[in-house]
Amino acid sequence: MTTTIELPAVADFHVHLRDGDMMKTVVPTVRQGGVSVAYVMPNLVPPITSVEQALSYHERLREVDPTTKYLMTLYLSPEITPDVIQKAAATGVIAGVKSYPKGVTTNSAAGVVSYEQYYPVFEAMEKHDLVLNLHGEAPSGPDTTVLNAEATFLPTLLDLHRRFPNLRIVLEHCTTAAAVEAVKQCGPTVAATITAHHLYLTIDQWADNPHCFCKPVAKLPGDRDALVAAATSGDPKFFLGTDSAPHPKTSKIGAKTGRTAAGVFTQPYAAQYIASAFDRAGKLEALKGFLCDFGRRFYKTVEKGWETKEEVEKVSIVLSNEPTQVVAEIGQGEVSVVPFMAGEEVWSLRWKN
Amino acid sequence: MTTTIELPAVADFHVHLRDGDMMKTVVPTVRQGGVSVAYVMPNLVPPITSVEQALSYHERLREVDPTTKYLMTLYLSPEITPDVIQKAAATGVIAGVKSYPKGVTTNSAAGVVSYEQYYPVFEAMEKHDLVLNLHGEAPSGPDTTVLNAEATFLPTLLDLHRRFPNLRIVLEHCTTAAAVEAVKQCGPTVAATITAHHLYLTIDQWADNPHCFCKPVAKLPGDRDALVAAATSGDPKFFLGTDSAPHPKTSKIGAKTGRTAAGVFTQPYAAQYIASAFDRAGKLEALKGFLCDFGRRFYKTVEKGWETKEEVEKVSIVLSNEPTQVVAEIGQGEVSVVPFMAGEEVWSLRWKN
Repeated sequence: MTTTIELPAVADFHVHLRDGDMMKTVVPTVRQGGVSVAYVMPNLVPPITSVEQALSYHERLREVDPTTKYLMTLYLSPEITPDVIQKAAATGVIAGVKSYPKGVTTNSAAGVVSYEQYYPVFEAMEKHDLVLNLHGEAPSGPDTTVLNAEATFLPTLLDLHRRFPNLRIVLEHCTTAAAVEAVKQCGPTVAATITAHHLYLTIDQWADNPHCFCKPVAKLPGDRDALVAAATSGDPKFFLGTDSAPHPKTSKIGAKTGRTAAGVFTQPYAAQYIASAFDRAGKLEALKGFLCDFGRRFYKTVEKGWETKEEVEKVSIVLSNEPTQVVAEIGQGEVSVVPFMAGEEVWSLRWKN
Repeated sequence: MTTTIELPAVADFHVHLRDGDMMKTVVPTVRQGGVSVAYVMPNLVPPITSVEQALSYHERLREVDPTTKYLMTLYLSPEITPDVIQKAAATGVIAGVKSYPKGVTTNSAAGVVSYEQYYPVFEAMEKHDLVLNLHGEAPSGPDTTVLNAEATFLPTLLDLHRRFPNLRIVLEHCTTAAAVEAVKQCGPTVAATITAHHLYLTIDQWADNPHCFCKPVAKLPGDRDALVAAATSGDPKFFLGTDSAPHPKTSKIGAKTGRTAAGVFTQPYAAQYIASAFDRAGKLEALKGFLCDFGRRFYKTVEKGWETKEEVEKVSIVLSNEPTQVVAEIGQGEVSVVPFMAGEEVWSLRWKN
């Protein structure tokens, strides 16, 4: 029996679109994934730490595909001052600031990340209504591994929320039952993104498969089950951020360095992976909230003028349980990227217009 | 200050020497690692399930390097009957039977591995004094991952020991504090091998490095610390079994299949990795027991006539803290293998004779 679901275009609140040739390969796949709004990570080389860099990157993205709306971010670092926050908010294009573990100071006594130096920045973000995006992992330490790095970070999330209750915070790509619980405990200014791949993976899948290896790593079966439950629950605190992270195939399989680059590439099938996972969980009725509504509401995309009410409500994509096979590779040569679940079947998708 | 330690030749009670071209590449590295006795795993393709196969494999190994003593094993499977055990013991070359998880039956009710069909074989092994080598991991299941597979298996070890108290059992390549404790709880007929690489690795090292990925996977820092403590404790229940497992570089980095073959190759530097690890732990005085004495005593190499008392006691290798750099690769083309810690420095080793 064919199941067909018509939805507004998807908003993906965590994407890596890179730069140069990789950008040209990846950016067109945003729309292929059913997505019209992409929240763009700032971790280029060098990272985006000024308003000018962010606006210039925004232009480069629009040159490749102007049909997608790109919301830009800054990389939390000493260059980001309250003045920069004020300027950023005034652009109407920069929506938030992303914090990576290595961009912060470690409080070695408690083993907890300390953000104290950035409190004035967070005050300015509260005032100018920018979102703080947290890569929620504690830095490596004697007792901190890829397995407990997220759980070790959670007290820091709770502390920041207590200090800045009006600061909108997103715990990015949460991977554990503990993280889901921590986000639920917080007030409405705290939300979390969940990726497509973390609805599928556990440690056993990435242990021997470089294309399933990412940070934070997929954890245990109980954690994956908690993520599926949160994503399909209808709780508006949880919405899509794919963390789609393209790496050249050669970097993934370690052919050059002997190491495996961290990142799972899901952009071209973003909505399709989610539809397949929600179908498997028997929760297709929760699809619209997770893919289309909750993230936009948290980020105030209409209120801020990034989208019109009509755009947000217009039925634009058609998802169907008629299977589509995920292609083996996207792009060529140095920018050949292997998508998640290459060769496997997922739901199909087409745009209505 | 130069530290020099003179020892008898090392006995390595868990090696994978493969067959064909890979065998020709790997077998000469046994002696390079300071090893004179190699306990050879039976997981060829097809596996060694008859006395004839084991003897033929023994001959092929001796053709490559007759200076090493090879103790042979059979692969536990329905072909192994009490009659086969009797025949095997009579050869004087076959010393034990290796059990892999997939070779056993799963008792799905309790989630525990059941060896019931092999009880007559174990009785015969007790009678003819062969050793049972356990790959101590429970098969995959809804709640069993690479992380808890060993801990999940431990009740099976305790049960087998209770049923066959005179059967000598080795829990191979133990990787967890829980396994160390379980082995300590058992009587003197139960021992454990510890590899070189598990004295170094935790999950963080193999997560992005295919050359550090093996089964059982390296676990948490507390587990690694427990292994170092056990290996350096002077407890004769713990001795060297490198589980050195060569795979072509192309299989390790997934260039062919997209998957990473499990196995860390340590054979050419076996004693050197251990000396470096014991040095770091400040426990060089425990080196001889772990490398030379405890395994031989457990396996009764002199009593069984595999070695003379003179061979066992003769000072044969010289270990020194003058650093040696681990080579980038061993072998060429299809059998090019990347050793553990390639490019890093370890203790050096030379043979006296």
